[in-house]
Amino acid sequence: MEFTHFDEEGRARMVNVGEKPDTERVAVARGFIEMKPETLKMIVEGRAKKGDVLAVSQVAGIMAAKETSRIIPMCHNIFLTGVDVKFQIYEDKSAIGVEARVTTVGKTGVEMEALTAVSVACLTIYDMCKAVDRGMVIKDICLMEKSGGKSGEYIRNENVFVKY
Amino acid sequence: MEFTHFDEEGRARMVNVGEKPDTERVAVARGFIEMKPETLKMIVEGRAKKGDVLAVSQVAGIMAAKETSRIIPMCHNIFLTGVDVKFQIYEDKSAIGVEARVTTVGKTGVEMEALTAVSVACLTIYDMCKAVDRGMVIKDICLMEKSGGKSGEYIRNENVFVKY
Amino acid sequence: MEFTHFDEEGRARMVNVGEKPDTERVAVARGFIEMKPETLKMIVEGRAKKGDVLAVSQVAGIMAAKETSRIIPMCHNIFLTGVDVKFQIYEDKSAIGVEARVTTVGKTGVEMEALTAVSVACLTIYDMCKAVDRGMVIKDICLMEKSGGKSGEYIRNENVFVKY
Amino acid sequence: MEFTHFDEEGRARMVNVGEKPDTERVAVARGFIEMKPETLKMIVEGRAKKGDVLAVSQVAGIMAAKETSRIIPMCHNIFLTGVDVKFQIYEDKSAIGVEARVTTVGKTGVEMEALTAVSVACLTIYDMCKAVDRGMVIKDICLMEKSGGKSGEYIRNENVFVKY
Amino acid sequence: MEFTHFDEEGRARMVNVGEKPDTERVAVARGFIEMKPETLKMIVEGRAKKGDVLAVSQVAGIMAAKETSRIIPMCHNIFLTGVDVKFQIYEDKSAIGVEARVTTVGKTGVEMEALTAVSVACLTIYDMCKAVDRGMVIKDICLMEKSGGKSGEYIRNENVFVKY
Amino acid sequence: MEFTHFDEEGRARMVNVGEKPDTERVAVARGFIEMKPETLKMIVEGRAKKGDVLAVSQVAGIMAAKETSRIIPMCHNIFLTGVDVKFQIYEDKSAIGVEARVTTVGKTGVEMEALTAVSVACLTIYDMCKAVDRGMVIKDICLMEKSGGKSGEYIRNENVFVKY
Repeated sequence: MEFTHFDEEGRARMVNVGEKPDTERVAVARGFIEMKPETLKMIVEGRAKKGDVLAVSQVAGIMAAKETSRIIPMCHNIFLTGVDVKFQIYEDKSAIGVEARVTTVGKTGVEMEALTAVSVACLTIYDMCKAVDRGMVIKDICLMEKSGGKSGEYIRNENVFVKY
Repeated sequence: MEFTHFDEEGRARMVNVGEKPDTERVAVARGFIEMKPETLKMIVEGRAKKGDVLAVSQVAGIMAAKETSRIIPMCHNIFLTGVDVKFQIYEDKSAIGVEARVTTVGKTGVEMEALTAVSVACLTIYDMCKAVDRGMVIKDICLMEKSGGKSGEYIRNENVFVKY
Repeated sequence: MEFTHFDEEGRARMVNVGEKPDTERVAVARGFIEMKPETLKMIVEGRAKKGDVLAVSQVAGIMAAKETSRIIPMCHNIFLTGVDVKFQIYEDKSAIGVEARVTTVGKTGVEMEALTAVSVACLTIYDMCKAVDRGMVIKDICLMEKSGGKSGEYIRNENVFVKY
Repeated sequence: MEFTHFDEEGRARMVNVGEKPDTERVAVARGFIEMKPETLKMIVEGRAKKGDVLAVSQVAGIMAAKETSRIIPMCHNIFLTGVDVKFQIYEDKSAIGVEARVTTVGKTGVEMEALTAVSVACLTIYDMCKAVDRGMVIKDICLMEKSGGKSGEYIRNENVFVKY
Repeated sequence: MEFTHFDEEGRARMVNVGEKPDTERVAVARGFIEMKPETLKMIVEGRAKKGDVLAVSQVAGIMAAKETSRIIPMCHNIFLTGVDVKFQIYEDKSAIGVEARVTTVGKTGVEMEALTAVSVACLTIYDMCKAVDRGMVIKDICLMEKSGGKSGEYIRNENVFVKY
Repeated sequence: MEFTHFDEEGRARMVNVGEKPDTERVAVARGFIEMKPETLKMIVEGRAKKGDVLAVSQVAGIMAAKETSRIIPMCHNIFLTGVDVKFQIYEDKSAIGVEARVTTVGKTGVEMEALTAVSVACLTIYDMCKAVDRGMVIKDICLMEKSGGKSGEYIRNENVFVKY
């Protein structure tokens, strides 16, 4: 088992994918941001009245997916065919769940694009709400599933790592 | 209590900080990435021999701090006076801790810059190791402390939110 | 009267503003996008129900203001203290008006930042609606007022140029 | 008739184009910038002698076409096969016309790339000349024609919208 | 013989490559940075002990290859399948050699990507060491070989230009 | 003597300059691109007739100066007060000399900005002419002088390194 991102001298490289075929690929990532109950309430109620935190977060997540190869050093710059960012409100846990689904037709997977979209969507929620709640915590960002490519399908066995 | 990032019509805006004085500001953020013990071992042993995952992650984190205002929609573009990204190995938890310390002299805080540096450093570790461990989880990214500016000092009361 | 953006050999340059004092500066720009009445109706009604075109446009405008020096070759890269993008619905003209107000404390004006924010906000409305209305027209983007700096205050005499 | 850029919950998304075939696509956009006659004269005469405003504007337009997916939130990042930006002097109207022609072979159209190139070329002319003419107005940016893709050919019926 | 980057009016353009077939392409570029012997010694010895200058330089070179179309105005934005940056220590010449190998499957060559990677890797070495050696010189950046595409194979006849 | 860009653990960092005073700073860098005599002739004659290679190169150099902190990992993002890029034709050496002069008022020097502007201007000349001359060589990019800041004035002793 070896890291593919290093050459024989231990220098990082952007792995050559030139011989991989173009296939349809999908990746879904997920994460959470935990906050005070009153912050969550402000976000939920604000959508209609005061200003839509999640609308800004979601635009940020989509734009970040497209920027992934510029943010993550060894990521290939690829054409994304679609990006979806969705939110779920967890009132019991006082948290918002963020899920990003990214698709491409190409030579590399889009796991990093999905994970980056989730991370940036969470960071943007933090930014929009930090004046009222500095203690928010971004939690459990992980890959939920992927398909396409040589490494085949991956579906997270939820129980192994994430104890949310 | 109100979100400052929205105007009276509920439209987002970049808050006007023109009347704030220039002060020295510091922010420290922290996060973790959990992985299989064998992945952690490969990272730790690799530094000397096979390739330095954390060196790449750290460069990515520093560069991301400088990109924050382009990634987070309502963040001000500011001059950073310093960025430090450090790692800690937690063998018992099979995780790597990432801490970013960002400083500026200016009109706005640098919490988002520190949180973005941590997030991107974690994402880069994921990217470098994903071929051997797709199940890694990024956890508990949060602000540890900040100082400077009108809202004054913040020090996380560790026990409230993060149950790591 | 001379263009300041060229040197004595006729080569463009980024004008040296090192000796200018830091002053408070404001610029307000405005523009319109004309469309079919049914497109305008869809945007206005959509805000509550189907999806908020103007929320996306407005985030794009704010982010573009921060990117101005990377888009416009001879623009200085400056710290913006605030950016506001507002919309007005003109049912009689079947158009949406976009106004951007940008502020800074620095050595150069922010006219280009305000004009870029308006342009990109209009382009984003076009993008979001083009599947239903390819004929939309972006019109009459101009500076409405500016203050601060050596060239002093500017207030558009509405009647001279724009015949909207 | 619906906006395709929103999902069933009214959240924006980058539309999935994964099933669209790769076809040759062309888009042509056009716009104008109106100015004082003496400003126009300075630009026209300057090309040979003092400095070439339009050369800078044109580089800016081409570079902006390539940046479109980073400026317009829901635009796909695509490979452009060609970008051409041309100018026409209208002495009677004291204006410069800008036309951008963008081509690709891919899954999405390039209307936004052509419109962005025109907008940024106009903004750059404004920037280069603003020291002598703050009242310039950017006018009538619109799509002139497109071909390729499922929605087929579009040719503007000049008389409907633009009354230039 | 003509420059292809200009149209019949002498305006620059991004050449249309839409009719070119997708082929495998490789480009290798090389350059050097000359420095004081003690600076070279610090870099070589530092890798293990004090901090790895070349690790940072190499990440910068890889990221720059991906940014080429945003840095070089008339370059097409293309998908790179692989980027490798390697270093060689020349103790006799008190210099570090940098070689970048870039691959793609596409319609345009990757010479500019390889040359940009080498340039930025050299600039980064300069930046990391400038506090101890301001006199470093970046030398002899050139294309060593390319293959693929209509213009076919190129292999530098070392003796013609570079007298290093 | 130590590299300041590494911390005690050998990890790179963006050096903290928060305690440095804001001073006026200037840096001048220079480089060359050597080419076939007929290529040089095409560039020189083209300016008036066929298309201005150096106009594009110069815009690219100025824009690159502003992008330096995004290209060079440990560079601070700073406000530049002015950027000038000039060319000199050396017919005897069949080369073009590029000189960049960058100024700021701030806490860090602008050597990297000047060196990056020169590098990118040279790369752009290569790009514009590569269809007729693949053998061009970029040579002897170095700092000519700097002033301002604690490290004081630097003036290159031309004879030591560059043997052009």
